[in-house]
Amino acid sequence: MNAWLNRFPLSASADPASPSETAALELSGACPDLKVSLNLQKEMGDRFSISGDPSGYHLSGGETGLLYGAWHLILSHAANDLCSGSVESAPRYALRMINCWDNPDGSIERGYSGRSLFFRDGKLSYDPSRIQTLARLMASVGLNTLCINNVNVRFPAQKLLEEDLPDLARLAALFRPYGVRLMLSVDFSQPMRHGVPTADPLDAQVQAWWAETARRVWTAVPDLAGFLVKADSEGQPGPFTYGRNHADGANMLAQAVRPFGGVIVWRCFVYNCRQDWRDTATDRPKAPWNLYAPLDGCFAENVILQVKNGPFDFQVREPLSPLLLGMPKTQKALELQLAQEYTGQQIDLFTMAPMWKEIFEDMPEDRISAIAAVSNWGDDENYTGHPLAAVNLFTYGLLAWNPSIDPRQAVSRWIALTYPGFTAGEHTLLTDLLLSSRRTYEKYTAPLGIGWMVTPHTHYGPNPSGYEYDLWGTYHKANHEAIGIDRTAGGTDYLSQYPADFAQKYASPEQCPDLYLLFFHRLPYTWRMRDGRTLIQRIYDDHFEGLAETRAMRDTLLSLPFPEEDRPEILRRMDRQLANAREWCDVINTFLYRLSGIPDEHGRKIYD
Amino acid sequence: MNAWLNRFPLSASADPASPSETAALELSGACPDLKVSLNLQKEMGDRFSISGDPSGYHLSGGETGLLYGAWHLILSHAANDLCSGSVESAPRYALRMINCWDNPDGSIERGYSGRSLFFRDGKLSYDPSRIQTLARLMASVGLNTLCINNVNVRFPAQKLLEEDLPDLARLAALFRPYGVRLMLSVDFSQPMRHGVPTADPLDAQVQAWWAETARRVWTAVPDLAGFLVKADSEGQPGPFTYGRNHADGANMLAQAVRPFGGVIVWRCFVYNCRQDWRDTATDRPKAPWNLYAPLDGCFAENVILQVKNGPFDFQVREPLSPLLLGMPKTQKALELQLAQEYTGQQIDLFTMAPMWKEIFEDMPEDRISAIAAVSNWGDDENYTGHPLAAVNLFTYGLLAWNPSIDPRQAVSRWIALTYPGFTAGEHTLLTDLLLSSRRTYEKYTAPLGIGWMVTPHTHYGPNPSGYEYDLWGTYHKANHEAIGIDRTAGGTDYLSQYPADFAQKYASPEQCPDLYLLFFHRLPYTWRMRDGRTLIQRIYDDHFEGLAETRAMRDTLLSLPFPEEDRPEILRRMDRQLANAREWCDVINTFLYRLSGIPDEHGRKIYD
Repeated sequence: MNAWLNRFPLSASADPASPSETAALELSGACPDLKVSLNLQKEMGDRFSISGDPSGYHLSGGETGLLYGAWHLILSHAANDLCSGSVESAPRYALRMINCWDNPDGSIERGYSGRSLFFRDGKLSYDPSRIQTLARLMASVGLNTLCINNVNVRFPAQKLLEEDLPDLARLAALFRPYGVRLMLSVDFSQPMRHGVPTADPLDAQVQAWWAETARRVWTAVPDLAGFLVKADSEGQPGPFTYGRNHADGANMLAQAVRPFGGVIVWRCFVYNCRQDWRDTATDRPKAPWNLYAPLDGCFAENVILQVKNGPFDFQVREPLSPLLLGMPKTQKALELQLAQEYTGQQIDLFTMAPMWKEIFEDMPEDRISAIAAVSNWGDDENYTGHPLAAVNLFTYGLLAWNPSIDPRQAVSRWIALTYPGFTAGEHTLLTDLLLSSRRTYEKYTAPLGIGWMVTPHTHYGPNPSGYEYDLWGTYHKANHEAIGIDRTAGGTDYLSQYPADFAQKYASPEQCPDLYLLFFHRLPYTWRMRDGRTLIQRIYDDHFEGLAETRAMRDTLLSLPFPEEDRPEILRRMDRQLANAREWCDVINTFLYRLSGIPDEHGRKIYD
Repeated sequence: MNAWLNRFPLSASADPASPSETAALELSGACPDLKVSLNLQKEMGDRFSISGDPSGYHLSGGETGLLYGAWHLILSHAANDLCSGSVESAPRYALRMINCWDNPDGSIERGYSGRSLFFRDGKLSYDPSRIQTLARLMASVGLNTLCINNVNVRFPAQKLLEEDLPDLARLAALFRPYGVRLMLSVDFSQPMRHGVPTADPLDAQVQAWWAETARRVWTAVPDLAGFLVKADSEGQPGPFTYGRNHADGANMLAQAVRPFGGVIVWRCFVYNCRQDWRDTATDRPKAPWNLYAPLDGCFAENVILQVKNGPFDFQVREPLSPLLLGMPKTQKALELQLAQEYTGQQIDLFTMAPMWKEIFEDMPEDRISAIAAVSNWGDDENYTGHPLAAVNLFTYGLLAWNPSIDPRQAVSRWIALTYPGFTAGEHTLLTDLLLSSRRTYEKYTAPLGIGWMVTPHTHYGPNPSGYEYDLWGTYHKANHEAIGIDRTAGGTDYLSQYPADFAQKYASPEQCPDLYLLFFHRLPYTWRMRDGRTLIQRIYDDHFEGLAETRAMRDTLLSLPFPEEDRPEILRRMDRQLANAREWCDVINTFLYRLSGIPDEHGRKIYD
């Protein structure tokens, strides 16, 4: 199975040497009857233009532009919305990245679709035909950069820069004709594996080691995109060990890779992960801003800070990370997570496009210069575990190309390609279901922006106090009267990290949008919402509604004519989602009922 | 290091052929100046008698009796309390067992002292000199039966009855001169590994397979004590699969081993481990009685039901299991746990002798015919992880021989043997500390018999709601007003499983001993205890006291002149215990304060 490319098998003998050759090959394979002339204009790069006349279509573009234009034609043709007018298209961001959290032993951190497609038994090990499918999936939606190994670099991943480099070069060659450049997560302390007594970024030996390593690596893989670094975070080594800051660390690496056109993507996911739950002075969401904002302007020009969409960690709902609105003199990448770590683990449906729309409503497109997403694929036959989770990978590609894409259109396009046999009515049913799936999931899980009520470590299923007395800085402090953390000026003052007009939206509980209410405010259960309901009644209502919507979702899925290769898996997972929704609904309601003693106004069953 | 036998090294060339030879050898090695004449009277078995006159000591006993008498002389001599009068001694129970939960891969389930001393890489693999030390440790305190493998029988442990049988015979030969007989945990479904299509105990093929297997096994190890079985429990196979009851299952095995003098030790730790937390009709402590009591009189005479001391699972405090007071027509063994699964994991001090005293105060000695304890040893140099945890292994041996042993005397004896250099004052300080350690641990952990507020799975450290919405049947249902489960006639009626006079003690919250209060009753935080305190104040007080006592315990340990091989480890673990006590104290107090909103009357710090 090939996700949305099922209908476009590549001929077994295909062995294109360049993206423009791939473009021609894909077109002739997928649309043999479509007349398309290709006009390579190297300077166009990723861009393409299409015009149509009675003789056929004329596609112009750079090496990769032709490939993306070819896929535009193929997918539009297949979805029956190929228009006759002319098209000009250019991607919003030059780096459109996928980050795989794959470990050399073949496991995938937060992977829910099987084992790694790249690694096994400590080494690169893969099926070339599956690699080709990945490359085609990426190219078909315009993704061009792939970091293959986990940001938590565990031995022997370091060998990718050492004796496994020839293997890496062979893998890069498989991706190259599809316009996909590889990237590597690197271990900041790696020089110390080679006799250098320190990893201090200001040490000349360290700098020399990285410079020489970059030379070796780019000699083997000349189009490597760069290095991805998780430093001083959750146990990873970094510049703090040597009393240096993150600009020192990133810039040292940037200098090493600059001669080869490489970039350093430096993650901003840094916080105190050994926090004492008794410490109320520390508020974890404040950490990234406090650490990085003072360094604005200090980073080399080939450094990109990669910032998660929210200040915590991929919760169902978080406000925008303030770093994404700040640091005007620094290049930034937005980091999303396709892997459904906290959002249902590819068991529960959670279509992300509507969430991304909200992010870009809050963040002007030009605040970032690159975009990344943690992969949701693995070696499951269908790549994404849940057949319907492929919609997130597909729509992420469209978003990375054009962040103002309409979520409905993007989801609808994926359905048209994946389930072409659906009637218009069935198509609409599934579109609506996928688009509403995030709100449904949000309703039955943690209430009103509170987050973190998941089972510790696994992050699936409810555990409302699981992280409450733990080291991770993720507390709700619910007691018999109230719940939430006050993050306004009267509390931890996290809110002050935003521009004033942005902060304004959230500053008072009377004005704050409901779904962010408990992220920013600590409120009594008897708080009156704008619609007249009490806070606790709103939470009960949401949870009962989320469960009811999940039941309805199941009925809808049962009614749809999914093909035989998808249907059993979709229905099996739907049953698991329904059980999960019931568990969440009952556990959260019981948890708050036990605390508050306030019954549901409508007399629905809340367990003692 | 050899725990309490440090001062009694065995000569390197020792290779005794029988327990009586071992007795002579140990005496001449440990007390060369003591004149002892040995008089073997085989019919005396484990029993021994000692008389003294001016010519020396005269020791009479059976093969093993001489060995136990020899150790009595050696240890009394070493502890300076060898009396000149005569001694007659016989063990209360013929089977004095240690159960090891060792897996073939070398891990130990709930082991806190390193890896297995018996297994590695899927096979028996051991250091003969350490095996000899284990055997001597057991013999020195009268223990005579050793089950070497985990009751959760995981592949390839089955091979102990198959191709690994010759290896087992060699191991048994090492233990034999020390009077220790081996036992094996067996997989009830093992016939199905050998082409038998079922494991139904009433099936003739199954019966024939076990009969033939017993013949093979006892041919290789003629003095094997028997089989230990965990059936239909936590995923282990059992007779329920075939619609048979546990008497059917146990009796089938009993018949197979009877010709060889073997016994079947059948564990009664069976309950629904997939309970829905919403289900209030099921009360886990009721499970063993409900299952086994109706089968009284149905078990073969070489079957022994092995019953944990409490109805749950080795919590800090549980009332006696009702099975231990019932089933008069059935042989029963008491099962204790030396491994500190819920009681501090050999980091926190928890001396068990006072707890065992309470058990035997509730249970007349003659209600059981055998005794077992889950081992607390492993391949750590000192065998028990914490040097002071050896006291539990030592005193368990004394208890198994004579359950009316005084805890203070037993602990004091262990200290005299282990730390002979202590002054009388130091000796008393450590004795008092060890004897009080269980109450201290109890005070800072789960309140008043409630149990289960541990971190799920690992079972170390506090997590007051960790099991609250889980499948294990272990709930406290604390809400803003009250905590606990009513197990009286007005509630789950667990209490009715006891004899009336025994139940009487616990039936009303006014009469119920404080430390069992929340095991049997659900009570409001404002409940007035007999001493006038409210329930919640009592809980706060206990926790603050437990923490303060732990601090004092640390001061005491610092003041004691432990030898250099023990001191650093003892102090390191003490620091960890103190951190753990602080965490427990604060988390439990905060948890209940958040629920109740009731502050500490004495204004001590409870975190919000």
